[in-house]
Amino acid sequence: MFLTEKRMTTLKKISEIINGELKGDPDFEITSVNSLRNARQDEITFSDQDQLDTKTINAGALIISKSSSISYSNLIYVEYPYIAFASLLNLFFPHSRFNEGVDELAYVSKSAIVGKNVSVGAFSYIGDQAKIDHETEIHAGVIIYPRVKIGEKCIIYSNVVIREDVEIGNGVIVQPGAIIGSDGFGFTRTTDGSVVKVPQKGRIIIGNNCEIGANTCIDRSTIEKTELKSYVKTDNLVQIGHNVTIGKGSALSGQTGISGSTEIGENVIMGGQVGIGDHLKIADGVMIAGKTGVTGSIKEKSIVAGYPHQDIKQWRKNQVLFRNLEKYIERIKSLEKRVKELEKK
Amino acid sequence: MFLTEKRMTTLKKISEIINGELKGDPDFEITSVNSLRNARQDEITFSDQDQLDTKTINAGALIISKSSSISYSNLIYVEYPYIAFASLLNLFFPHSRFNEGVDELAYVSKSAIVGKNVSVGAFSYIGDQAKIDHETEIHAGVIIYPRVKIGEKCIIYSNVVIREDVEIGNGVIVQPGAIIGSDGFGFTRTTDGSVVKVPQKGRIIIGNNCEIGANTCIDRSTIEKTELKSYVKTDNLVQIGHNVTIGKGSALSGQTGISGSTEIGENVIMGGQVGIGDHLKIADGVMIAGKTGVTGSIKEKSIVAGYPHQDIKQWRKNQVLFRNLEKYIERIKSLEKRVKELEKK
Amino acid sequence: MFLTEKRMTTLKKISEIINGELKGDPDFEITSVNSLRNARQDEITFSDQDQLDTKTINAGALIISKSSSISYSNLIYVEYPYIAFASLLNLFFPHSRFNEGVDELAYVSKSAIVGKNVSVGAFSYIGDQAKIDHETEIHAGVIIYPRVKIGEKCIIYSNVVIREDVEIGNGVIVQPGAIIGSDGFGFTRTTDGSVVKVPQKGRIIIGNNCEIGANTCIDRSTIEKTELKSYVKTDNLVQIGHNVTIGKGSALSGQTGISGSTEIGENVIMGGQVGIGDHLKIADGVMIAGKTGVTGSIKEKSIVAGYPHQDIKQWRKNQVLFRNLEKYIERIKSLEKRVKELEKK
Repeated sequence: MFLTEKRMTTLKKISEIINGELKGDPDFEITSVNSLRNARQDEITFSDQDQLDTKTINAGALIISKSSSISYSNLIYVEYPYIAFASLLNLFFPHSRFNEGVDELAYVSKSAIVGKNVSVGAFSYIGDQAKIDHETEIHAGVIIYPRVKIGEKCIIYSNVVIREDVEIGNGVIVQPGAIIGSDGFGFTRTTDGSVVKVPQKGRIIIGNNCEIGANTCIDRSTIEKTELKSYVKTDNLVQIGHNVTIGKGSALSGQTGISGSTEIGENVIMGGQVGIGDHLKIADGVMIAGKTGVTGSIKEKSIVAGYPHQDIKQWRKNQVLFRNLEKYIERIKSLEKRVKELEKK
Repeated sequence: MFLTEKRMTTLKKISEIINGELKGDPDFEITSVNSLRNARQDEITFSDQDQLDTKTINAGALIISKSSSISYSNLIYVEYPYIAFASLLNLFFPHSRFNEGVDELAYVSKSAIVGKNVSVGAFSYIGDQAKIDHETEIHAGVIIYPRVKIGEKCIIYSNVVIREDVEIGNGVIVQPGAIIGSDGFGFTRTTDGSVVKVPQKGRIIIGNNCEIGANTCIDRSTIEKTELKSYVKTDNLVQIGHNVTIGKGSALSGQTGISGSTEIGENVIMGGQVGIGDHLKIADGVMIAGKTGVTGSIKEKSIVAGYPHQDIKQWRKNQVLFRNLEKYIERIKSLEKRVKELEKK
Repeated sequence: MFLTEKRMTTLKKISEIINGELKGDPDFEITSVNSLRNARQDEITFSDQDQLDTKTINAGALIISKSSSISYSNLIYVEYPYIAFASLLNLFFPHSRFNEGVDELAYVSKSAIVGKNVSVGAFSYIGDQAKIDHETEIHAGVIIYPRVKIGEKCIIYSNVVIREDVEIGNGVIVQPGAIIGSDGFGFTRTTDGSVVKVPQKGRIIIGNNCEIGANTCIDRSTIEKTELKSYVKTDNLVQIGHNVTIGKGSALSGQTGISGSTEIGENVIMGGQVGIGDHLKIADGVMIAGKTGVTGSIKEKSIVAGYPHQDIKQWRKNQVLFRNLEKYIERIKSLEKRVKELEKK
C-alpha cells in the first residue's frame, strides 16, 4: 500500500517521458522531484519563467519552456513545464490504491453491480442497485445510497456520502467528507407563518473528470436536475445549490456558494468565498474575484469584483476613491468656505 | 428499498388529495409531477402566477391559486399551489426508509433505549444511555454519543455526528455530514500569551421539526445552552456558535455563520454567507440579505444589507452613489476650478 | 463512560485547587459550576469585572481577580478568574474517554504502531504503518490513512479523516468531521483550455496542542509542506490551503479561509469569514476583523478590516463617510448651484 522506496532514473529517460529536448548530461541520475527552492542535486524541478537567477538553485536539472532563455547545467525544454512536472510527480510519487477488492469489513448490496478491479474500503456501504464501474476506488467509510451510478477510474475518498440516484461520470475524484445529493433548501410558508418542507427528489449528474473538494456539498432540487459538466473542479467547503448547472471546465475556489437554479457557463473561474445569487446566468469565461457577491446575470466574458459585483477595473478605481473619501470630503468643506467668502463679496 | 415503479392516478383523486376544485376531465390519468417547463401530457405541475402564457406548456394539468385567472385544459384550484405540489411530490416519490430495524453491522449500546420501528443503518454507533424515539431513522455511518436524546419520526442522514448530551425533538431532519455538539471556540490567554482551552460542557437543544443542512456545525458552549427552537431550518455549511439561540421558524441560508451568545428572534430569514457578530440580539421577522455582516443588535423588524449592516434601501442607494463616485469627484474638481476662476476676479 | 453523578466539595478545597485566596466560609459546599446569571446557591461562578451589581446573583461563591473590588458573601481571589473557572469545569465535568482500548468493531492494521492506553472506537480505521502515541483517543468512524503519525494525549473526534503521511503533535484535539490532508486545489490549463490536475504529494505537520474545528479542511500541497505550529486553534468550517504556514498561537474563527502558500505569523487573531489571498505574509500579532478580505501582505502588528483590508480605524471612518455619502453629494449639488449663481454675477 502506497509505495515509498526511492526511485532512480536518468535525465535521458525523464526527457523521453515528458517528450522534452535535453541540453545536458543524459546519464545524470535523478531520484525525485522538488520545488525550485528546495530541490537538491539529485532532484529535478521546473520553472515557468523566461529568466531566472540560478545562483541559489541547487537542483540537478530544470524543466523549462522552449521559449525560455534560462541557462543552467542540465535543462529539459518542453511545451508546458508545469504539466511535465505534474507527470513526473506521478512517476516519483505514484498513486497507490487504498485497498484491493472489496474489504471484508465493507458492505455491498447483492443487487449492486461492481465492475472489474473495483476496490471498496472498510466500513463503506454500497446500497441496492448501485453501479460502480471498472477500476474505481471507494475508500473507507464511504456511504453510497441506492441506485447511485459511478463511472470508471474514479477515486472516492473516505467519509464521502453520495445520496440516492446520483450519477457520476468517469475519472471523477471526490475528496473526503464531500456530500453529493443532500436535499436542496426548499421550504414554503403558509399565510399563518408555518414552514412546510418541499420534497427534494431531483437528480444530480456529475460529468467526467470532475473533482469535488473536501466537505463540499452539492444539493438536489425538487424535481429538476443539478449538473456539473465535465472537468468542473470545486475546492473545499463549496456549496452548490439545487438545480444549478456548471459548465465544462469551470473552477470554484474554497468556500464559494452558488444559490439555486443559477447557470454557470464554461471555463468560469471563481476565487474563494464568492457568493452568487439564485436564478442567474454567468457567461462563459467570466472570472470572479474572491469574496465577490454576484447579484445579477453576467452576459459577457469579463472580470468582476465587489458586492454588488462590477467590472474589476471600475471596482478597483472606486476602492481607491473610497479609501481617500476623507480627503474629498475635506475638499468639499474647503469649497464651501471659499464659496461663502465669494458670496459675501 | 426506495420505490421506483410508475404510479398512476386520476385528476379526480389528485384533486381530492390536495383538497382542490377540479375544472377539467376527472378521469384524466396522471403518472407523475414535474416542473412547469418539463411536465409532459401525463404529468401535473403548478403555477403561483395570476397569468401565464400557456402556449409552451405541455403538462396534463395545472395546480393554481383560487385567485388565478390562468385558463388551461385541466386546472385544479387550491389555496397554496406550491404546498399542494409538495404533497404530490410525496405521493409520486414517496420517502422510503434507509433500512428496517437495527442493521447487523450497526452497534447499539445495551444501555441505549430504542423505540418502535426505529431503524439504524450499517456502521452506525448508538452510545450508552442514548434514547431514540419511535419511527426515527438513523442511516449508515452515523455516530451518536452517549446520553443523546432523539425524538420521534426524525431522519438522521449518513455520517452525521451527534455528540454527548444533545437533545433533538420530533420530526427533525439532519442532512449528511452535519456535526451537532462540537466544542465551542473557547480559549483564553494568560498575560504571557499562553493559550488555554476553556472546557465546553453546555447542552444543545434542537426543537421539533427543525432541519439541519449538510456539513453544518452547531457548537456547544462552556456551560450555557445552545438552542434552536422548533421549525428552524439551516442550509448547508452553516456555523452556529456556542450559546446561540435561534427563534421559531427562522431560516439560515448556506455558509451563514452566527457568532457566540447571539439571540436570533422568530421567523428571521438570512441569505447565504451572512455573518453575525457575538452577543447580539436580532428582532423577530428581520430579513438579512446575502453576505451581510451584522455588527450590532437589530431591534425592529427590518431588511438589512451591507457590512456593517444598514437598512437595505439606504444600502442600495449608497451602492449606486459608490458606483458613481468617480463622477462626483470629477464634479468636485470642476467646482474647484470654477471657484478658483471666481476668486481671481 | 462519561461520569454524571453529582460531585460535592468545599470552598476550602476549591480554593486550594485553583490556588486562590478565600474570603468566606471554608466549609461552604459546592456541587457544580455555572454561569454568572444561572448559578444557584450550591454552585460557584466567576467574574472578570472590577465591579458588579450582585443583587441578582444567586451563586454560592464568586471567583474574582485579585484587583477586583466586588464584595460578596463568598469570594475566591485568583490571578486569572476565567482560567480558574476553566479548571473547575474540568473538575466538575471531567472528560471521560470515548472507549477503552481498541473496539472489536475497529480495524487496526498489523503494521500500525499503537501506544499504551490508546483507544480506538468502533468503525474506525488505522492504516498501514500509522503510529498513534500513548493515551491518544480515536473516537468512532475515524479514518486514518497509512503512515499517519499522531502524538500523545490527542483526541480525534468521530468521522475525522486524516490522509496519508500527515504528522500530528502531542495534545492535539480534532473536532468531528475535520479533514486533514485533502488534495490542494492545484490545476493547470493547456493553451487549448484542457484542465490538468497537478498531483498533491506534500506533507502536513500539525504542532503540539493545536485544536482543529469541526468540518475544517487542511490541504496538502504539490510538494512543499503545509504547517500549523503549536497552539494554533481553528474554529469550524475553516479552509487552510496548500503550502500555508500558521505561526504559534494564532486563532482562526469560523468559516475563515487562507489561500495557498500564505504565511501567517504568531498570535495572529482572525474573526469569522475572513479571506486571505495567496502568497502573502501576515506579521506576528496582527488582528483581522470578521469578513475582512486581505489582498496584500501585512508587515506590522496592526488591526485591519474591510475588503481590500485597511487599518480598522481608517475603515471605520470611511464607513461612516460612506453611510453619509448622500449628504455629501447633496452638498456638492448645492455648491454647484451657488457657484453658478456667482458666475452669473
